[in-house]
Amino acid sequence: MNNGIKDLDLFFYPRSIAIVGASEALNSYGARYIQALLDFGYTGRIYAVNHNGNEVLGYKIYRTVLDIPDSVDLAAICVPNRFVPEILRSCVKKQIPAAIVLSAGFSESGEEGRRLEQEIVEIAAQGIRVMGPNCFGTYCPAGGITIVPGGHFPREGGGIALIAQSGQLSEGITGRSFGEGIRFSKVASYGNACNINEADLLEYLMQDKETRVFSAYLEGVKNGKRFFEIARQNDGKKPVVLWKVGLTRSGSAAATSHTGSMAGGSTTWDAFFRQTHAIKINTMEELIDTNVGFSCLPSGCGKRVALVSGGGAGTVIGADACENAGLLMPAFSAQTENQLRAVLPAVGTSVRNPLDIGNPHPPLAQLNAVLEAVASDENIDVIVIRRIFFSIKVSKFFSGTAAPSFEEQEQLLQIPISVKNKYQKPIVIILTEELTGVGDIDLELERRKIRDYFFSHGIPVYLTEHRAFTALANLSRFKERVGRPVALQIHTSSQSRQNTALSKALKDGRGVLLDEIQSKEILKEAGINVTETVIARSKEEAVKISQTIGFPVVMKIVSPQITHKSDVGGVKLGLKTARQVEGAYDDIISSVRRNVPDALIEGVAVQQMARSGVELVIGATKDPQFGYLIMFGLGGTLVEVLQDVAFRISPLTGEDAAEMIRQVKCYRLLKGFRGQPPVDIAALENMLLKVSSFVENNPVIKELDINPIIAYSDGAVAVDARIIVEREDIQH
Amino acid sequence: MNNGIKDLDLFFYPRSIAIVGASEALNSYGARYIQALLDFGYTGRIYAVNHNGNEVLGYKIYRTVLDIPDSVDLAAICVPNRFVPEILRSCVKKQIPAAIVLSAGFSESGEEGRRLEQEIVEIAAQGIRVMGPNCFGTYCPAGGITIVPGGHFPREGGGIALIAQSGQLSEGITGRSFGEGIRFSKVASYGNACNINEADLLEYLMQDKETRVFSAYLEGVKNGKRFFEIARQNDGKKPVVLWKVGLTRSGSAAATSHTGSMAGGSTTWDAFFRQTHAIKINTMEELIDTNVGFSCLPSGCGKRVALVSGGGAGTVIGADACENAGLLMPAFSAQTENQLRAVLPAVGTSVRNPLDIGNPHPPLAQLNAVLEAVASDENIDVIVIRRIFFSIKVSKFFSGTAAPSFEEQEQLLQIPISVKNKYQKPIVIILTEELTGVGDIDLELERRKIRDYFFSHGIPVYLTEHRAFTALANLSRFKERVGRPVALQIHTSSQSRQNTALSKALKDGRGVLLDEIQSKEILKEAGINVTETVIARSKEEAVKISQTIGFPVVMKIVSPQITHKSDVGGVKLGLKTARQVEGAYDDIISSVRRNVPDALIEGVAVQQMARSGVELVIGATKDPQFGYLIMFGLGGTLVEVLQDVAFRISPLTGEDAAEMIRQVKCYRLLKGFRGQPPVDIAALENMLLKVSSFVENNPVIKELDINPIIAYSDGAVAVDARIIVEREDIQH
Repeated sequence: MNNGIKDLDLFFYPRSIAIVGASEALNSYGARYIQALLDFGYTGRIYAVNHNGNEVLGYKIYRTVLDIPDSVDLAAICVPNRFVPEILRSCVKKQIPAAIVLSAGFSESGEEGRRLEQEIVEIAAQGIRVMGPNCFGTYCPAGGITIVPGGHFPREGGGIALIAQSGQLSEGITGRSFGEGIRFSKVASYGNACNINEADLLEYLMQDKETRVFSAYLEGVKNGKRFFEIARQNDGKKPVVLWKVGLTRSGSAAATSHTGSMAGGSTTWDAFFRQTHAIKINTMEELIDTNVGFSCLPSGCGKRVALVSGGGAGTVIGADACENAGLLMPAFSAQTENQLRAVLPAVGTSVRNPLDIGNPHPPLAQLNAVLEAVASDENIDVIVIRRIFFSIKVSKFFSGTAAPSFEEQEQLLQIPISVKNKYQKPIVIILTEELTGVGDIDLELERRKIRDYFFSHGIPVYLTEHRAFTALANLSRFKERVGRPVALQIHTSSQSRQNTALSKALKDGRGVLLDEIQSKEILKEAGINVTETVIARSKEEAVKISQTIGFPVVMKIVSPQITHKSDVGGVKLGLKTARQVEGAYDDIISSVRRNVPDALIEGVAVQQMARSGVELVIGATKDPQFGYLIMFGLGGTLVEVLQDVAFRISPLTGEDAAEMIRQVKCYRLLKGFRGQPPVDIAALENMLLKVSSFVENNPVIKELDINPIIAYSDGAVAVDARIIVEREDIQH
Repeated sequence: MNNGIKDLDLFFYPRSIAIVGASEALNSYGARYIQALLDFGYTGRIYAVNHNGNEVLGYKIYRTVLDIPDSVDLAAICVPNRFVPEILRSCVKKQIPAAIVLSAGFSESGEEGRRLEQEIVEIAAQGIRVMGPNCFGTYCPAGGITIVPGGHFPREGGGIALIAQSGQLSEGITGRSFGEGIRFSKVASYGNACNINEADLLEYLMQDKETRVFSAYLEGVKNGKRFFEIARQNDGKKPVVLWKVGLTRSGSAAATSHTGSMAGGSTTWDAFFRQTHAIKINTMEELIDTNVGFSCLPSGCGKRVALVSGGGAGTVIGADACENAGLLMPAFSAQTENQLRAVLPAVGTSVRNPLDIGNPHPPLAQLNAVLEAVASDENIDVIVIRRIFFSIKVSKFFSGTAAPSFEEQEQLLQIPISVKNKYQKPIVIILTEELTGVGDIDLELERRKIRDYFFSHGIPVYLTEHRAFTALANLSRFKERVGRPVALQIHTSSQSRQNTALSKALKDGRGVLLDEIQSKEILKEAGINVTETVIARSKEEAVKISQTIGFPVVMKIVSPQITHKSDVGGVKLGLKTARQVEGAYDDIISSVRRNVPDALIEGVAVQQMARSGVELVIGATKDPQFGYLIMFGLGGTLVEVLQDVAFRISPLTGEDAAEMIRQVKCYRLLKGFRGQPPVDIAALENMLLKVSSFVENNPVIKELDINPIIAYSDGAVAVDARIIVEREDIQH
């Protein structure tokens, strides 16, 4: 597949568009597409194409794209699904480099649809980039192109880009965003993503000069690994705002029948967000609120919030919402508190953060003094104001004749704007719905006007405490990454390539599950410290091996049928003498024979008994969309019960390895607990990096489990391990 | 304090009200109170009282309440804080049985305020019930009384009761609720709760015939234990809907300076919600949405949701929101799917749940057939419809000339109403904001009209998927409890009273921390199985004790200075012979002397070595507001690291004990893991109940920790324990 992204320009700035399926009926999708372009003011050439009819909206209808006399940049295809491949082939013939397939009825709807979509994929490989199928097209004010329906969308552009698989939501999110003041660089409804996918669009928009923020509604990903890599490479450059849906069981099933998407598991996506620092969005409101925030505050804002409230209850609600969102509400400096004390009445106020100014209608000078005091406090990154700005009608209701006049209200609104400009400190305003009855609609209108006024001066306005702090936390997530060096020192170990033990195990071809001895040989070669382990086929051999590697030893059954060896009496620990080894050998064999009569017994592994330490686990599994996931956590038999584990998408950076170790609860054990010395965390980080590098270089690995790893203050050692390889790869 | 709740009637149905602080100035709080009563249409007698002035709003101003010629049911006091005690005393003299203190400046604002509030508490004990101070009063349509400002509140009553500490929010929540259709039985703004507190109001409203739902905005509780007990006794009778704020560190601090509340910890409140099944609210929107739901569906609704969507993206978003809220989206029966297949087009729809009907503007007959099919499916408790009902303007925008006419729109709105009535199955509608610009205000007006229309027919309408499913989950929480026998078989063990070992330890008076031997003696007497433990003061004694209780034994240092015994070499396990016991004794003494030179060594405890099993912990701590909290979880040294523990407020019911064991992750171990037999869960439940009963009967206990308890398939035994007692109680 051609992954060049330069050709994506044609989807946003086409000089000519052929609309295929534009019939004389004005209600046809094709005719509506033309109408939308005309309404929007598209200035390029438009060609209508349909199997019949003469003219639509003043445009001659061509029978096929081949009949069009000029060159065409972009074909927009709106015909029933079964005709799409034929039309795409004619586009290739006409050397049209780009096509949007708006038609539905592909992989989202059964076997026949999947076959048709596969046909599109194959045609695209012949030299045409395809967006869709099952989509609404693109909107780009600078290019004069719009989605359908979107003829009335603003021609004014902005810095927000949006991509959405769902056509309905590409229109729905964009449409709702306009009312909040958001303006877009580019919007792409890319449907089933059979050719142009999320990774292409992310790469393109990351380089797009008009785009300052990348936002997306994602049902699934087509190329998770590439999407991940691009997002990670661009970490801290532009905000990546992702509303990833389908993370629940029911949601995932629904995504499959909607855009044929594999939604992916929440464990993987959790790792994705941690590693790329993309902003995780949970609702449409949060997506819009976050984009409102970035529209006003392009590089986000810091975490340290001052809340200024006209009334006490809001300080409690606000503080809860602030802390729940992961933001901080630091104490003001003594100087700030003194300044506040000087301007606020003593009763019914609080000069601490969150600040209660008591009166929801403060005198102008008082509000100005309060905001200036807070804005000049070095402990504060952002000021959030609530319950101070109301509609005049609400003010009258609360305060009767004490309510401000229209003129005073106007002056009041100036204050945060002038303080923000003077101190260059972000200000955010919470403006709630006071009354929501049919008869109160004028309040809502006034609220929207105040919102727009503040927005036009770079102050985002939010409807509730929860929404404000959720958006601010998202903004702070980006701010933390700006200017940080991108952590892309991916560890590649030369030891991880050309693993002869792995080649040998594959050639033996005994099965997909490699035994402990094979697995540890492979890991040892990959640079991972393992306890020395040798297989004994007889009691005598076991004694000889023990004497060679040194007592005490551990003995474990080796059998492809037995995974949980201790459950069947297949493990003996702490054997200190030759006699104990002999006895253990017999015990193991007889116990396994009794418990698992059908097991093929290959022998008994004899290994050094590791000193006691903290038992940990490292694992790797293959995710169908993102490649390897690496796991780290508390090991031993409790791993399944307690699930104190962290995951990251491979390849790991040093930062990934460091963070995943610090994420698990048992990190407290590793740091040194109850007077124990801390364990060698560098050795664990190194082991994680080696495992990541090893699986990346050996894609035949399907699953890898090192459990337990025993960690000490001076290193760590893998005591047991198993590897599962891909069946198809070993059948050669 | 008089806790009789009958006298609370006077706060809601007073036949006469004296407003103290009603001056001639119409802007005074007292005058505004009178004005609000007049506007609202209060029909009882009104008396104005003030230290000066002649007349206000046509009412003669009396100098003191004692001058009022008739009896007075309720005094409303709106004077500066320092005059309140004097006025309250005059009310007592006048034999006014009830007073609302609206004035602020009490425990929420410093030392002087706290002193004044304490004075009110003392006066109240002389025979007057007091609501407040620092509040807005009460609203009761049936009683003709309203809060200030609330003269314009509807006279129409309903089934929702609301209490709020915050005056602003009592007005704010109530005011906003009206627009959504909610009507109230009673609203109480009860401020600092110095006399009438949340528990009084809960008890009163639980018995109030007009009230079907109790809802509350709580900053803290004054009598958590009683509030908890009343909520638990009424579980399943009326929904208890609690917006508990101040659960974060910052929020808690803000609550203290707002209404002088101790907010309480989130661990305790988590237990509260689990045990009472009260509905936990997180935002004002959720509170209102939940009350909207109960207004339409008084007994809540089941968990099994069908989602009917006009478009595919909504099925994904909806399914995510549904599952995240804890609801179920079960498969339709084969019959339902067949019925749906017969009425829906094959392409662009999905007949599975969540159902995508493809077209947001379905023909009337099709929508009716779809809803009837779903409503008759026995797997479904509630139908949620999204993206089918729009304003006409939105419809036109999406579908152009295909949009329904006004008449068709009217007919469309009838369908869910008739299906709901025919099948008696709840229907819920999601009606989103499509556009939120200043120019789109007419859409919002139309949305509100549709909302009101559905609400008037018993169909709740919500603004977003998230809000709809969050509210429904709350409704289902109540439904699950309706008709269930209230689980109040609180275990009281006769063994827990008159603990002679405890009395002896207290008399010894050596300190607040009882040692292992004392603690285990006390627990043994309380009916808890402990390993037999005897203190040895010499090596010889240790051997003799070992021989009596039987080998193998464990030995542990006994010293008031040493809590973590194993950290200092103070523990030896698995001693099988007299010689080993002798050696261990010497080792322990010398190791402890070396590690903790100042420790007072009382001896070495010798105890039976417990068989190996699952190590658990049971604990009890005292919460300042709720009494004892009981803990259960994974024990041993990892308890602090992994924190796999559950908490419940004491006294425990059998259901509490059963649920807390099932709540922890390590329950998988208890059920039998990797072929191990399950442990004796009944024994653990019994042990929890005995601990709960013991601490309830012995309030001198400050903290109790049994760690580890070892659980087997046939019982469980406490291997180590420590008890901390209250210092003040041992100083007699």
